[in-house]
Amino acid sequence: MRIGYVGLGVMGGALARRLLVSGPVTVFDLNARAVADLVEAGATAAPDLAAMGAACDVVFLCLPRSENVRAALFDHGLADALRPGATVIDQTSGDPTETRAMAETLSARGIHMIDAPVSGGAKEAEAGTIAIMIGGAADRIAAVQPIFDRISPNSYLCGAIGAGQVMKLINNTISTCNRFAMLEGVALGMRNGLDLGVMSDVLNAGGARSKATEAMLPALADGVPDSFFYLNLMLKDVNLATQLATQSGVPLQFGQLARGMMQAASNRLGPQANLFDIGD
Amino acid sequence: MRIGYVGLGVMGGALARRLLVSGPVTVFDLNARAVADLVEAGATAAPDLAAMGAACDVVFLCLPRSENVRAALFDHGLADALRPGATVIDQTSGDPTETRAMAETLSARGIHMIDAPVSGGAKEAEAGTIAIMIGGAADRIAAVQPIFDRISPNSYLCGAIGAGQVMKLINNTISTCNRFAMLEGVALGMRNGLDLGVMSDVLNAGGARSKATEAMLPALADGVPDSFFYLNLMLKDVNLATQLATQSGVPLQFGQLARGMMQAASNRLGPQANLFDIGD
Amino acid sequence: MRIGYVGLGVMGGALARRLLVSGPVTVFDLNARAVADLVEAGATAAPDLAAMGAACDVVFLCLPRSENVRAALFDHGLADALRPGATVIDQTSGDPTETRAMAETLSARGIHMIDAPVSGGAKEAEAGTIAIMIGGAADRIAAVQPIFDRISPNSYLCGAIGAGQVMKLINNTISTCNRFAMLEGVALGMRNGLDLGVMSDVLNAGGARSKATEAMLPALADGVPDSFFYLNLMLKDVNLATQLATQSGVPLQFGQLARGMMQAASNRLGPQANLFDIGD
Amino acid sequence: MRIGYVGLGVMGGALARRLLVSGPVTVFDLNARAVADLVEAGATAAPDLAAMGAACDVVFLCLPRSENVRAALFDHGLADALRPGATVIDQTSGDPTETRAMAETLSARGIHMIDAPVSGGAKEAEAGTIAIMIGGAADRIAAVQPIFDRISPNSYLCGAIGAGQVMKLINNTISTCNRFAMLEGVALGMRNGLDLGVMSDVLNAGGARSKATEAMLPALADGVPDSFFYLNLMLKDVNLATQLATQSGVPLQFGQLARGMMQAASNRLGPQANLFDIGD
Repeated sequence: MRIGYVGLGVMGGALARRLLVSGPVTVFDLNARAVADLVEAGATAAPDLAAMGAACDVVFLCLPRSENVRAALFDHGLADALRPGATVIDQTSGDPTETRAMAETLSARGIHMIDAPVSGGAKEAEAGTIAIMIGGAADRIAAVQPIFDRISPNSYLCGAIGAGQVMKLINNTISTCNRFAMLEGVALGMRNGLDLGVMSDVLNAGGARSKATEAMLPALADGVPDSFFYLNLMLKDVNLATQLATQSGVPLQFGQLARGMMQAASNRLGPQANLFDIGD
Repeated sequence: MRIGYVGLGVMGGALARRLLVSGPVTVFDLNARAVADLVEAGATAAPDLAAMGAACDVVFLCLPRSENVRAALFDHGLADALRPGATVIDQTSGDPTETRAMAETLSARGIHMIDAPVSGGAKEAEAGTIAIMIGGAADRIAAVQPIFDRISPNSYLCGAIGAGQVMKLINNTISTCNRFAMLEGVALGMRNGLDLGVMSDVLNAGGARSKATEAMLPALADGVPDSFFYLNLMLKDVNLATQLATQSGVPLQFGQLARGMMQAASNRLGPQANLFDIGD
Repeated sequence: MRIGYVGLGVMGGALARRLLVSGPVTVFDLNARAVADLVEAGATAAPDLAAMGAACDVVFLCLPRSENVRAALFDHGLADALRPGATVIDQTSGDPTETRAMAETLSARGIHMIDAPVSGGAKEAEAGTIAIMIGGAADRIAAVQPIFDRISPNSYLCGAIGAGQVMKLINNTISTCNRFAMLEGVALGMRNGLDLGVMSDVLNAGGARSKATEAMLPALADGVPDSFFYLNLMLKDVNLATQLATQSGVPLQFGQLARGMMQAASNRLGPQANLFDIGD
Repeated sequence: MRIGYVGLGVMGGALARRLLVSGPVTVFDLNARAVADLVEAGATAAPDLAAMGAACDVVFLCLPRSENVRAALFDHGLADALRPGATVIDQTSGDPTETRAMAETLSARGIHMIDAPVSGGAKEAEAGTIAIMIGGAADRIAAVQPIFDRISPNSYLCGAIGAGQVMKLINNTISTCNRFAMLEGVALGMRNGLDLGVMSDVLNAGGARSKATEAMLPALADGVPDSFFYLNLMLKDVNLATQLATQSGVPLQFGQLARGMMQAASNRLGPQANLFDIGD
């Protein structure tokens, strides 16, 4: 199967690079520099999305939002160029409702769609250890499972189309809430004279332990805040989760509170703000 | 140093039993059955708190609330019976503000006070692996450190008097928030067709991992909800944390939300309600 | 201008009835009983939406949701039957984003769209005192203003298409929050021995006065809870407001809290639940 | 009955001035300037609180917090100087739990206590139109009712001692929540292009109407934000309300959210911050 990759940002670029390790990949991005980097690593550049569609059996996409996926597929010729029987694999942290709608449209043309967002960073992607959350028809997933295995052995079958993205939203919303709960608890301790290092030791030994206390709290205690917690990236996913909760009839009170606090901070501090800038 | 233990409930009883392993302990509780159990294990029963005070150099207390500690010390004769130089060690999950006030009153009589609540269950207490969070004057803690070591090697010096209890409130508030964030996220997944077992696997492999996802989620997936999450126990500690936050000028928005949701559920479901009964 | 009215539920029926007072109206509803009532009052029944479109210059719609408006217009022939220059007036408490999208589609066919939801009950609608919040192009609104005046003199020009619905969502979200704030405050008073009648007197004389304290609190004090506060109706509008807030980058923390509490109560109590059933 | 007034700040000063209109008043404050102003208006200055206690049958207090009332009564000689049968009337926006405790201590000395906080500003106090919320024993209130009538005819009997302060906390918490709900709703409207003046008109005509929309929104629309909404004054009362809610087992979710948002803003903006500075 001829493989293509659309969207060579931080994550998409790393995932395409990983795929390149074990076989040829055709790539496309509006950013010429990102394309050049991949070509240098051995990839073939597609001149446009129509050419990409014509040249591939399986096309991955990793774009900022589902609306970008929709535009790539339906406004810029990708869907029209794909043959019946082709598979589109969306690795965007997207909106599962939108993804289900696109899958239905593609299905009418005989094109399969799978959603497969990832959890972890670019480093894990290149190292082949990233977690892949997969949604789609079981037989279609089985048909491309070998390609997923080339990315990472850690893939999780989450359910029907959209289920991978739902899973990712849930994961990111919970981890965001865990971070806020940790930060506000630690703020309470600091106001009462407790040392960050002591709190880090105790929380990591006790019932409050989480990825947030393990990864973020020791860094905070050492005065080295992790710079990757851009508010707006966290906000994007939690926004999607709260919208899904509204559609699904789920309260999601903690997620909503996180959303409101991040949106207020983003309005106040600007789009480049970091989680640690909230600092109330 | 002659050691006494007041309050032989689930935690206090286990801690006293642990101390008994390495030396004599005088015990007191209003519940005759609890006293008899400890006596059978080798402890000496004190007929009342005045006798306890007269017989001991170091008296531990582990009671439901700080007001019970106050009553034991000042209304039922314990403080009057203690000699100057004696040490009171409060293992109650109490109110640090109250504890500081009691410590000041005792100090005027030459009696030292240390707070040393624990994190973990009765099983860990008896096994000698429980975490002890200690607050008080460094020299007084050093003087009794060998006794703490008899309970468990896992003790944490948190700061001045009350700091152990502050640490415990923070730990329990964060862990409560982590549980709620996990439960509401999982509810969102279930409404969207995701399987509990799959969610447990993914969350435990990803950024949302916490003690809650490790201990509680697999049990939920197996249909065996852990029965120890009594709402009112969690509510008591989170109530204390939000009060401390108010006194300290800290927002604690997630803790407040958890408090409100637990209080509403407790009003609706009664004091014996379990976290899983909330079920919205 | 020949006028049509689609959707003869409680509000739509009352509004159509009000229009009938001052001129002929063609009506349509899937509920034959609702149509028969209006016909008895002097209206003409359209056999279907295509006939309605062919027979009218101005068609009002008042339906449960924007998706029903979309279906009426585009799936059941209304838009195809309308002539260029016709005006669609949507009185649904709908989703302004959806409304803007439909307006754009209609505009390409030369059909104008105005949104004009109302605030107040069926009684005010029939009495001609209801408030109408209007969004759309100023010249199109001016062209149909005489028809709005036949409904009520209380119309408010809110801005471009969708602005009337935005205004309504804001009004309903604020009033929902005011009700919750009042109810929880009153619950605090009752737990502390205060009488409902006294609280009603004081709150209505003080800074806490609102429509909620004026209309709902005296009824509560008299043991006559107003039966019209169906949770799910309130929830529908607050859901739309929180979605709009997410799209608009506004925190809306109180609205989100109200949404979460209503959704939890609705899940617990069923769709017919009343605001007063929450009762925590 | 000889009347004294302790605490001549903005509110206390205005209330003492109002009492002076209809009879003699002895006054005390640590601020010499405030005392001089009242003396110039005809009041008699007490040299200290002991002299005040010796000279009066009824002593009003209006101080920042209940702890100031406690200090005046028990640390600075007021209670010792009062005769059995005297009445202390606390007009502080205080902590009802503290007030009940002080009343019990005074009662043992034969001194009566009534709480009587007010709602309204200094202008209303001087004009004799302010609302007084009264808690205490019915016969003791009856004995001093003529004095309350000299302040204003608008007095409300709320219940036993502390009930006046509970009533005030409830009123202020609800009005704070109404303000936040209004401000965030209006922010949503502005982001969607709605005009402040239009929103003011519609909200004041609809279900969202409240004291906040009537008094604050037109001022906002005119670009004249009311400068009296100091965050820290609002925060103080809402803090007391949430503490009372914790003690009373009431969720008070909206009040908690308001508290958290105000505390975060106060930490960020400083103690002189105004409600409008929040501006998220």
